[in-house]
Amino acid sequence: MRRALELAQRGPAGDANPRVGCVLLDRHGDVLAEGWHRGAGTPHAEADALSRVPAGAAEGGTAVVTLEPCDHTGRTGPCSLALVEAGVRRVVFAQPDPNPLAAGGAGRLRAAGVEVRTGVLAEEAAALNERWAAALALGRPWVTAKWASSLDGRVAADDGSSRWITGPEARADVHRRRAEHGAILVGTGTALADDPALTARDGDALLPRQPRPVVVGLRDVPSGAALRRHPEPLLAVRSRDPRQALAAVEDAGATSAFLEGGPTLVSAFLAAGLVDEVLVYLGPTLLGGGRLATIDLGVRTIGDQRRLAVRDVVRLGDDLLVVARPAQEE
Amino acid sequence: MRRALELAQRGPAGDANPRVGCVLLDRHGDVLAEGWHRGAGTPHAEADALSRVPAGAAEGGTAVVTLEPCDHTGRTGPCSLALVEAGVRRVVFAQPDPNPLAAGGAGRLRAAGVEVRTGVLAEEAAALNERWAAALALGRPWVTAKWASSLDGRVAADDGSSRWITGPEARADVHRRRAEHGAILVGTGTALADDPALTARDGDALLPRQPRPVVVGLRDVPSGAALRRHPEPLLAVRSRDPRQALAAVEDAGATSAFLEGGPTLVSAFLAAGLVDEVLVYLGPTLLGGGRLATIDLGVRTIGDQRRLAVRDVVRLGDDLLVVARPAQEE
Ligand SMILES: NC(=O)c1ccc[n+]([C@@H]2O[C@H](COP(=O)([O-])OP(=O)(O)OC[C@H]3O[C@@H](n4cnc5c(N)ncnc54)[C@H](OP(=O)(O)O)[C@@H]3O)[C@@H](O)[C@H]2O)c1
Ligand SMILES: NC(=O)c1ccc[n+]([C@@H]2O[C@H](COP(=O)([O-])OP(=O)(O)OC[C@H]3O[C@@H](n4cnc5c(N)ncnc54)[C@H](OP(=O)(O)O)[C@@H]3O)[C@@H](O)[C@H]2O)c1
Repeated sequence: MRRALELAQRGPAGDANPRVGCVLLDRHGDVLAEGWHRGAGTPHAEADALSRVPAGAAEGGTAVVTLEPCDHTGRTGPCSLALVEAGVRRVVFAQPDPNPLAAGGAGRLRAAGVEVRTGVLAEEAAALNERWAAALALGRPWVTAKWASSLDGRVAADDGSSRWITGPEARADVHRRRAEHGAILVGTGTALADDPALTARDGDALLPRQPRPVVVGLRDVPSGAALRRHPEPLLAVRSRDPRQALAAVEDAGATSAFLEGGPTLVSAFLAAGLVDEVLVYLGPTLLGGGRLATIDLGVRTIGDQRRLAVRDVVRLGDDLLVVARPAQEE
Repeated sequence: MRRALELAQRGPAGDANPRVGCVLLDRHGDVLAEGWHRGAGTPHAEADALSRVPAGAAEGGTAVVTLEPCDHTGRTGPCSLALVEAGVRRVVFAQPDPNPLAAGGAGRLRAAGVEVRTGVLAEEAAALNERWAAALALGRPWVTAKWASSLDGRVAADDGSSRWITGPEARADVHRRRAEHGAILVGTGTALADDPALTARDGDALLPRQPRPVVVGLRDVPSGAALRRHPEPLLAVRSRDPRQALAAVEDAGATSAFLEGGPTLVSAFLAAGLVDEVLVYLGPTLLGGGRLATIDLGVRTIGDQRRLAVRDVVRLGDDLLVVARPAQEE
């Protein structure tokens, strides 16, 4: 199962489909083939593994999968059926499928006389697709909001300059996390002021998977903008409504969005209660002045505060990353 | 020396004089007496210890002191002389006296034939009086600025309400640190808006030593204010000049000030470069709106930022304390 989880990680994060890995063993328990899911529209992990073995080779064997084999005919047929047809005798999976449309594979397998074991490394498997499963439950993409500020909550000096509030370790962390989301969002204000590339990079190299760049707001992104050279086509959402932005993200096949600002757009998402995780990168500096990380969140009195629960505090070079999520209401 | 350091800690922090402890041993190395300094105008630690033994008892003995015995006649005579006169044969001390007015005790002792050893637990001894020594070097009281804010740098909601941005652990930490300073400063804005007591408490109990409360600004503190019931008399500095506030603190015999806000006064101190340590208590919440932890620090462009070096990050319950000091200029 560890190996299957490793394989699953090769798949794309933030995609419409979860990341799944599969290891096929023959009747003696020797590895026959490995497979993983490469994203919506491509074969499921089980089908991928089965496609790599000659007909009959899996007979009497075992399939180790990170997610319950689907029982749903989408762009591919149900994996439960494919496993039964291949003569697999035993299926071990980590996480039950949280998608009601696809669940039921375990039942079909058992009905066909296949031995089914479940729950192995279930937590690890669930963590792998946490945002995907949350999006399913929320009925909209998962939203991670990120900003980098001084200790007094400023994102730039008064003249708008903001270089080196945080250092290289923090920036590398941002790039790593960009790649874990299906889309990356900024407002037109940031797109026009900063002309960001919004690619996920390791140093100068592009990471293999790039989130879909999305700009939210009524204004145009100029044809010469760096965003126009992003490996994924730019999605311009000509609206100021966060819900509409998320609908566009969903239509583009992404289940998670990395919201990188600016303050206006982040505040609109926060005020609408549409942020699931907050990443605050704090640089050890004080700026004062008028360039605030958040603007108006609709908090008039302290009872309305947007209370968070801190999940993690990480020191990144000279900086501090606070990872927090909205606190559960009592 | 460990014991002498423990004794030293009984003395008052933030006082015009350093905290010093002394253990007197007889010629056989057995403890004769202990002493410590109780603050300006009271006997030095050595004198305190010597006063507890009969004449002649210390003859041939050893004095273990956390600070170099003074060679200066102030409100008490030089301790170096007192030790020589008591017939002490050996003096062990931790830290050389950084005060040029009082230093030279080691020389006088050696000249009188006393064996002198130095440097034992010197770092611990220096840490004990770090702010006092820094004030000596700065020529003004040491300033620790503290505020409690949301992760987006707000100290209150728009209507001014601010209860429970941070939790009980953070508040207890503030009280502990108040007691480590000679004075506690707020602006008239905070004094009038919050009517704070500014006492250092452990739960409901007053801690043994209370910092001198100081209010800075032109307006009056009403006669019914909680500050008027503080165990130490209120010092009202009728000025908006941070330097004048510090001069008043110094005149009151304090070498360190705990600056608790509000945003206007803290910003004035920061802009003037008069803050030596910053304590930011971050509550896991977002507020938005206009009640900022800092206002204008004179930072127009990012090159002017008030860069800090983080010394410590402490989790206090749900909150985070960031302890930082101005970064050294390259
Ligand atoms: N330190 C950081 O982490 C960080 C990150 C990002 C940006 N920044 C800085 O932030 C600055 C830009 O700030 P910003 O707040 O102007 O940028 P923004 O949030 O990216 O863009 C604001 C614009 O987005 C549009 N918009 C979209 N949804 C909206 C809504 N619900 N309400 C109102 N407007 C909406 C509006 O433009 P339309 O008229 O086009 O609709 C608005 O002017 C830049 O200086 C940048 O450097 C800092
Ligand atoms: N969360 C926290 O950590 C925290 C801490 C403290 C306060 N607060 C909140 O902060 C609010 C009060 O804020 P504030 O900024 O008005 O309070 P403040 O800084 O305590 O007081 C400001 C006043 O101090 C005087 N002053 C002294 N030096 C000054 C200078 N250099 N420049 C300008 N004025 C100077 C002025 O009044 P005169 O006209 O009298 O000269 C000024 O109006 C309250 O709501 C309080 O709850 C929060």
